[in-house]
Amino acid sequence: MSFAILQQKINAKKNPTVMGLDPKLEFVPQHIIDEVIKEYGKTKKAAGEAIFRFNKGLIDACFDLIPAVKPQSAYYEMYGLDGIEALYKTVEYAKSKDLYVILDGKRNDIGATAEAYSAAYLGETDIFGESQKILDADCLTVNPYLGIDGIKPFIDNCEKFDKSIFILVKTSNKSSGDFQDIAVDGRPFYEKIAEKILTWGNTDNIGVVIGATYPQQLADLRKLMPNTFFLVPGFGAQGGAADDVKPAFDENGEGAIVNSSRAIMCAYMADAAKQNDGENFGKWAREEVIRMKDAINGVIASAF
Amino acid sequence: MSFAILQQKINAKKNPTVMGLDPKLEFVPQHIIDEVIKEYGKTKKAAGEAIFRFNKGLIDACFDLIPAVKPQSAYYEMYGLDGIEALYKTVEYAKSKDLYVILDGKRNDIGATAEAYSAAYLGETDIFGESQKILDADCLTVNPYLGIDGIKPFIDNCEKFDKSIFILVKTSNKSSGDFQDIAVDGRPFYEKIAEKILTWGNTDNIGVVIGATYPQQLADLRKLMPNTFFLVPGFGAQGGAADDVKPAFDENGEGAIVNSSRAIMCAYMADAAKQNDGENFGKWAREEVIRMKDAINGVIASAF
Repeated sequence: MSFAILQQKINAKKNPTVMGLDPKLEFVPQHIIDEVIKEYGKTKKAAGEAIFRFNKGLIDACFDLIPAVKPQSAYYEMYGLDGIEALYKTVEYAKSKDLYVILDGKRNDIGATAEAYSAAYLGETDIFGESQKILDADCLTVNPYLGIDGIKPFIDNCEKFDKSIFILVKTSNKSSGDFQDIAVDGRPFYEKIAEKILTWGNTDNIGVVIGATYPQQLADLRKLMPNTFFLVPGFGAQGGAADDVKPAFDENGEGAIVNSSRAIMCAYMADAAKQNDGENFGKWAREEVIRMKDAINGVIASAF
Repeated sequence: MSFAILQQKINAKKNPTVMGLDPKLEFVPQHIIDEVIKEYGKTKKAAGEAIFRFNKGLIDACFDLIPAVKPQSAYYEMYGLDGIEALYKTVEYAKSKDLYVILDGKRNDIGATAEAYSAAYLGETDIFGESQKILDADCLTVNPYLGIDGIKPFIDNCEKFDKSIFILVKTSNKSSGDFQDIAVDGRPFYEKIAEKILTWGNTDNIGVVIGATYPQQLADLRKLMPNTFFLVPGFGAQGGAADDVKPAFDENGEGAIVNSSRAIMCAYMADAAKQNDGENFGKWAREEVIRMKDAINGVIASAF
């Protein structure tokens, strides 16, 4: 769905944050691990089940507070077909709770192949003459390195099926500067990417990824792209704080969504006081969601 | 496996080419489509089966002639879980025929997430205390936009499990110049990427992707990276010819592998003379493999 819908969900819940779902088995509470091993043994099937049950618990605990979830495809792919099945079930469950689903896959390829990825995650695939949805996320993250013909198939499906994409511009990791910061005519390379993206189409469904760990760059890019929706990872476990993400928002306190994954999912084991209280992981995740929401609302203009 | 192993397989078969496996349903011969619909109806399960049977037929017809296959993940993901299962089965089958498997996934993310992708395709995943292989390709394509900490987890598994990666440098598509050709100090951006990659480690298992559609750039990059293994897509259906790929090879006619996907897979429907002879798709694919092998051997130095 377009960013207008995402912004509506954010406004309705007064919460410009997204819960990242990166469920490594080591993050799953012990009682769930015990359950699935009892049912399926120490198998990949059990791993997929554990992941889905954990995600479902997190969604059940937080769906009334958050507008969106962002499953990171890698953490499902690493458990094989059973892990990927857990991803499919998680997306379906999140949508049943009316959450906006951002699939973080950072897909990229030449045009014909980008069409295949776009069919998988935003569009439809022809199965013996019948067009069918495959994973059907609302939004997908993509990598721009191949230029417009690797992005166009995603944009086409955004328009056709009312979806959206976030294109990587300045990522949150330490070495993002290796290439993204290379000076081109005295300005960082990622600004060239940002400028080009502005020529590619509609800000209704083409957003960008800018890490919370680079607040100055976030501010510069907000000036360069005043109407573009920002997905801001790097908050929480990666080190970004509320003041750092403030520049991502426009003067109305809109136009951005901040992701936190491990800080929410693993809230139950965040500090000694919680005594690794996995039985109540949902309660602790909920508490962290509220803390994050209040912290971010405390610094942005609208503060709802 | 490292590129030394790939080069051994190339030399043994006197063939520096790789068969791309990009099996859209529209490429699958009608008799296979009829079979799977009869068995499974017009379902995704049938689509996955059709893809696997087509791939198996192509491998059976060509495995004695080719050193490697390159399944493109997007064409499996677009058919959902059944498509991805066909990818797993295809990789397993290709390995049983002693083929080098290059998974074309162009994965990329920040370090912790790149670790998850690396576990999925090159390394192992911990499943309840036991390290297990997941897809277990020999080689994976990756995108460098996030810098070294998004690549390091792949390099680590290359070393630990004797695998390899190809990093995108100059891609074969028309718009690859949008960002890759941006001038930095008077030289194209992709050369900056190439130079940086040379500092990242060992040419035994870190190769690069350079499109056949840009022969001059291929020649320049061969000079810049004399010992780096090149994966060269864009031959055949994308327009690259044997003369175009000649500069990819070193003075011994080694150090590169050229991919062709559609021209081989769809050889049976390549021209009117073949009368869309899907029943004999393997025979026509085999003929195209030999034609491609001879064309490339005709222009490279060693010519075996």
